[in-house]
Amino acid sequence: TKTLRFGMLPADGIGHEVLPPAQRVLEELSTRKALPKLEFIPLNAGFDYFRRSGVALPDETIEVMKSGVDGAMFGSVSSPSHKVTGYSSPIVALRKHLDLYANIRPVSTVDGKVDMVTVRENTECLYIKKEELDRLPDGTKVARATRQITQNASERIGKLAFEIALKRDKVRQSGGSSPHSEPSVWSIHKSNVLSVTDGLFRESIKAAHKSDERFDKVKLVEQLVDSFVYRMFREPQIFDVCVAPNLYGDIISDGAAALVGSLGVVPSINANDTFAMGEPVHGSAPDIAGKNIANPIASIRSAALMIEHMGYSDAAASIYKAVDEVLKEGKMLTPDLGGKSSTTDVQDAVLKAL
Amino acid sequence: TKTLRFGMLPADGIGHEVLPPAQRVLEELSTRKALPKLEFIPLNAGFDYFRRSGVALPDETIEVMKSGVDGAMFGSVSSPSHKVTGYSSPIVALRKHLDLYANIRPVSTVDGKVDMVTVRENTECLYIKKEELDRLPDGTKVARATRQITQNASERIGKLAFEIALKRDKVRQSGGSSPHSEPSVWSIHKSNVLSVTDGLFRESIKAAHKSDERFDKVKLVEQLVDSFVYRMFREPQIFDVCVAPNLYGDIISDGAAALVGSLGVVPSINANDTFAMGEPVHGSAPDIAGKNIANPIASIRSAALMIEHMGYSDAAASIYKAVDEVLKEGKMLTPDLGGKSSTTDVQDAVLKAL
Ligand SMILES: CC(C)[C@H](C(=O)O)[C@@H](O)C(=O)O
Ligand SMILES: CC(C)[C@H](C(=O)O)[C@@H](O)C(=O)O
Repeated sequence: TKTLRFGMLPADGIGHEVLPPAQRVLEELSTRKALPKLEFIPLNAGFDYFRRSGVALPDETIEVMKSGVDGAMFGSVSSPSHKVTGYSSPIVALRKHLDLYANIRPVSTVDGKVDMVTVRENTECLYIKKEELDRLPDGTKVARATRQITQNASERIGKLAFEIALKRDKVRQSGGSSPHSEPSVWSIHKSNVLSVTDGLFRESIKAAHKSDERFDKVKLVEQLVDSFVYRMFREPQIFDVCVAPNLYGDIISDGAAALVGSLGVVPSINANDTFAMGEPVHGSAPDIAGKNIANPIASIRSAALMIEHMGYSDAAASIYKAVDEVLKEGKMLTPDLGGKSSTTDVQDAVLKAL
Repeated sequence: TKTLRFGMLPADGIGHEVLPPAQRVLEELSTRKALPKLEFIPLNAGFDYFRRSGVALPDETIEVMKSGVDGAMFGSVSSPSHKVTGYSSPIVALRKHLDLYANIRPVSTVDGKVDMVTVRENTECLYIKKEELDRLPDGTKVARATRQITQNASERIGKLAFEIALKRDKVRQSGGSSPHSEPSVWSIHKSNVLSVTDGLFRESIKAAHKSDERFDKVKLVEQLVDSFVYRMFREPQIFDVCVAPNLYGDIISDGAAALVGSLGVVPSINANDTFAMGEPVHGSAPDIAGKNIANPIASIRSAALMIEHMGYSDAAASIYKAVDEVLKEGKMLTPDLGGKSSTTDVQDAVLKAL
């Protein structure tokens, strides 16, 4: 039988503490034959690595990621607090190099009241990083950045959003509490100001909706990004699948995380149709790094999303269930959730609940 | 004695219902000699007007605003649900024409737990509306927008943010419940991705901090916009003055509005050093327009911010106090706050509490 190989990129801060628990959970499932044999390949990336080596994302890492692994897990990156020449975020670069065009970030509460997923376009918008610095005639500085939205990337992410809405609806039909009576996709934009770029995004999501008659049963709703943030906090239960250009997606998915108690439980994958890289939504949290108190749940859930994307739905489901049990029981919680348990405690509780 | 002239631009939807209560309150204060004689000049603008006339912001309106009035109130604009050739948001255009470089949006809860103000740069960022549509070699569409950040505009908004922090601190010293023990300015950016544009914004806010030794007593804190949105919902009490480039400011101020119960109570002014235009933060709310149930409080408070900016602090304070009383009492509330009162009821309650 085949061995699955996973690239492991802890990067910075608590990335080093939350990836091992995810690995332990996957290994346990492999031992129980719910997953094939596994191999984990440590890979360099991050700001710490940049300080040691001068590169944030070494070529070897990109090469292995491109051809040597079946999936990957990324920890978290620290952002320099001052401008550092030559440094550029490795996570943004990885998404681009591997064309991981979708950033999928589900959030839900154990009580089933909130159940939404952000499907964020992951390759363009202001993240193309075309920026320039210039001087005005009076000698003061002016900086410009290009925001790029393409029909292809927008339709592609739109289609995926509708697929995900259908899939979620199917899962709901087969039980499970949910606030949604019908599947919906919310298209997030600011076309009242950005009529050309967000106009194209909006139009492309509409085109995606019409591209397949299976999508007819999914309702398409449009929402300005500012009002969206307002509504997300007033009536979070109404949102199902939310599709957004890159930067809005970044902002709203962090906002959505606030709905569920802690960034420490919110997972994501960076994915294309054949590959997924799990990534907890939280940052590198330098203030708590090295203390064994970081919440490993976001990372463990990200690993589940990753293997689900690879087709191992049952194994993934068993992880979700185990994590939900630990959260519902509420005995083993890290400090971000008001508990006193350590990273390892929570890992062990999940392993036990598996 | 001088007569104060105010331009009144209801624009669309409930703008027509919430501006009259603001006018009534100002008139009442004038009758009581807390304000000079007043004159209100109705001015055209908006999407409805565009549909009738083909222009969203007629030249006459711009001219009167530029030279014929001492202040102004803007209602709210509807955004077309489909792309409409030739239409461009009149509020964005007005800010630019009058160089109303700051969008000031305070939110606070009656219990004093939340007490923050967004100071949003109001003239540049993606709001310069430089966009173009092109075709890729494969014939599909690509759209690009330019995001512009200048040192001048960023330092200018930064200085204003520090001034506002000092002023708020002074008011707090003289009583009033507040969660803040020291004044702080939060600089909101995304320089881990936009190192040049947001790098310049960040650097300019730092320069503003150093530009005047009076600002030394204000703490400067930097925060990535995505984490900011997360934190705003987890620990809103920590935020005092939040300064942000245009688009982030748009998004976070709508988010902040969610903290205080309803967009219907959140005011703003678009201001420069000599002129202010009040603008409730809510939209045109076509679903409730014409029913006399729109909340007039955001508009009334915006009028107070406007006259405060003109130097009539006492008159403004009496409006804030009257509104707070009505809210605290909780008997006369519009449906957005869970009540059953009409727009006119709430207006009358405020007049009575004055
Ligand atoms: C670290 C940063 C570049 C990144 C992003 O903006 O995408 C992060 O916020 C995320 O959401 O994964
Ligand atoms: C109507 C729209 C153009 C406007 C903006 O984006 O500035 C509105 O959302 C606001 O915040 O005043």
